[in-house]
Amino acid sequence: MKKFSNLPSDLVYESMLGFAAVHEQLVSVHMDPLYVTRKTPNPSKVALISGGGSGHEPLHTGFVGVGMLDAACPGQVFTSPTPNQMLAAAKAVGSEAGVLFIVKNYAGDVMNFQMAMDMMDVEFASILVNDDVSFEAAAHTAGRRGVAGTLVVEKMVGAAAERGSDLSSCKHLGDRVNACTASMGVAFTSCTVPEAGVPTFEIGPAEMEVGVGIHGEPGRRRTAVQPAAAIVKDLLQAILKDLNPKPGSEVLLHVNGFGGTPLMELYLLHHLAGEYLREQGLVPVRSLVGNYTTSLEMAGASLTVTLLDDELKSLWDAPVITPALRW
Amino acid sequence: MKKFSNLPSDLVYESMLGFAAVHEQLVSVHMDPLYVTRKTPNPSKVALISGGGSGHEPLHTGFVGVGMLDAACPGQVFTSPTPNQMLAAAKAVGSEAGVLFIVKNYAGDVMNFQMAMDMMDVEFASILVNDDVSFEAAAHTAGRRGVAGTLVVEKMVGAAAERGSDLSSCKHLGDRVNACTASMGVAFTSCTVPEAGVPTFEIGPAEMEVGVGIHGEPGRRRTAVQPAAAIVKDLLQAILKDLNPKPGSEVLLHVNGFGGTPLMELYLLHHLAGEYLREQGLVPVRSLVGNYTTSLEMAGASLTVTLLDDELKSLWDAPVITPALRW
Repeated sequence: MKKFSNLPSDLVYESMLGFAAVHEQLVSVHMDPLYVTRKTPNPSKVALISGGGSGHEPLHTGFVGVGMLDAACPGQVFTSPTPNQMLAAAKAVGSEAGVLFIVKNYAGDVMNFQMAMDMMDVEFASILVNDDVSFEAAAHTAGRRGVAGTLVVEKMVGAAAERGSDLSSCKHLGDRVNACTASMGVAFTSCTVPEAGVPTFEIGPAEMEVGVGIHGEPGRRRTAVQPAAAIVKDLLQAILKDLNPKPGSEVLLHVNGFGGTPLMELYLLHHLAGEYLREQGLVPVRSLVGNYTTSLEMAGASLTVTLLDDELKSLWDAPVITPALRW
Repeated sequence: MKKFSNLPSDLVYESMLGFAAVHEQLVSVHMDPLYVTRKTPNPSKVALISGGGSGHEPLHTGFVGVGMLDAACPGQVFTSPTPNQMLAAAKAVGSEAGVLFIVKNYAGDVMNFQMAMDMMDVEFASILVNDDVSFEAAAHTAGRRGVAGTLVVEKMVGAAAERGSDLSSCKHLGDRVNACTASMGVAFTSCTVPEAGVPTFEIGPAEMEVGVGIHGEPGRRRTAVQPAAAIVKDLLQAILKDLNPKPGSEVLLHVNGFGGTPLMELYLLHHLAGEYLREQGLVPVRSLVGNYTTSLEMAGASLTVTLLDDELKSLWDAPVITPALRW
């Protein structure tokens, strides 16, 4: 896969310089150690910090700002950030209200965030996101993976923190959102890590990987490409089996592109997923469609469903002003 | 190229149903004939209408809303919309202040918009966008192509119309923005039109197409893939030769992805382009980075530079509330 790059080893650093310039009114970027903070800190609120390997943009750096994250720590491509990044970010945005880490469930992220937490000297808590229902034990993880549902957790907890919820409330809210959020995706192509230079996996011209992870990890099975309606049904059956929603439940439907699929196809998936959810007696009342939790240039998409109540709807609707999410 | 699709011939229609559901608070979608209008019409202002083939999303449908377009008419993939779509859209949003059509310079678009204009019974004018400096005579066009600079024209004229500028002022502003805007791009891969099912062009694993059009049309030359800094210099030299800016000029720098290139690489291009512009004595004071004028899943990107003055900066900064652009 061809890339816009000078030295692959400089890509993350040079890219962050561009990100910093473009979004200077919303965020500040500290280059060494590398972390992004919101431009106007709010020292009276719980500070939300996330992070993870680069290559999933706009996750997480694009979600730093008012009403979402206070800081994000980008690692090298598909590689966890280090504890010193997290500690420096916590020092920059931490407040007396405490620090809440939002961690996707990958072994490297979990280990590095744990090391940072072991060295924290202010009050903190953490949320482990594991919304991927593809299967239980996957490469790079202990248990279910954290994927596109991470955005939902960050948005809703971000709104609660902005409203003044305390650390314990934010932590429990995050766990609750994670528990009522489920995701699953399919890939048509692989992604290529710049420093590796070769595709992460091989896939035939008429095949798709069902249940793929956001680093191109294997999923449930490899099959022939199916019509979009069949793919949507397959993904939503797994998601709804996991969530086991009551009939009539209101839901958020998030269609996430992995980076290489046209917006037109993502809107098609939303239409089909909305129809299927209504057939199952559910009521999609909130939507988000776009490339938010990507896997470099992988073609494919995931569906995420979150069961809503009045509190979660209100948190989703609350104002957000970040580089990638704004309303 | 694999696609999320049921019947390829239904893709645009089914996708628009998803778009309509997701953005129902901002836009209304009329399915037959197909056009998108802003949810809350402002009958006292000049009505801005654009359109073109689908496959470039979010252009143009994603730019309908407050401060930008009043209506957009999507054609089939890479195929001009028809005059009856444009006339129906004009009837839906047209006002006594008149209708302004914004047309990208492709033979099909020009012909179909002209046919619609020949049948208009209210005051109207049109702006022809031709910002691509790749070369003069390209396939599908008579003269320079209209590419990612179209967004800049639509944003600035949209802001002027929202402020109450009359038809003649909006028309002249659009021509002026077009004249001080120049773009050029490169592609690493082809795109595949769903109904065709095969790539629009062939390109080797280490080649790039310099000066490519947004439908995969040939550009200036085919070369080996260059480092990102060399690509940026090559594109900006052509752009600045066209614009011939005065030293010290303030500029808008828009890095546009064609759909299949990770955001990380687009921010890298922005960083490098900003450095090059400053070396040339120019001052980048506004930026936009993302996939806005796409070519389905084509990997590649274009750079657009607009020469700014206080009026254009103010129009760029004015509020915009659309599905794809919001501040």
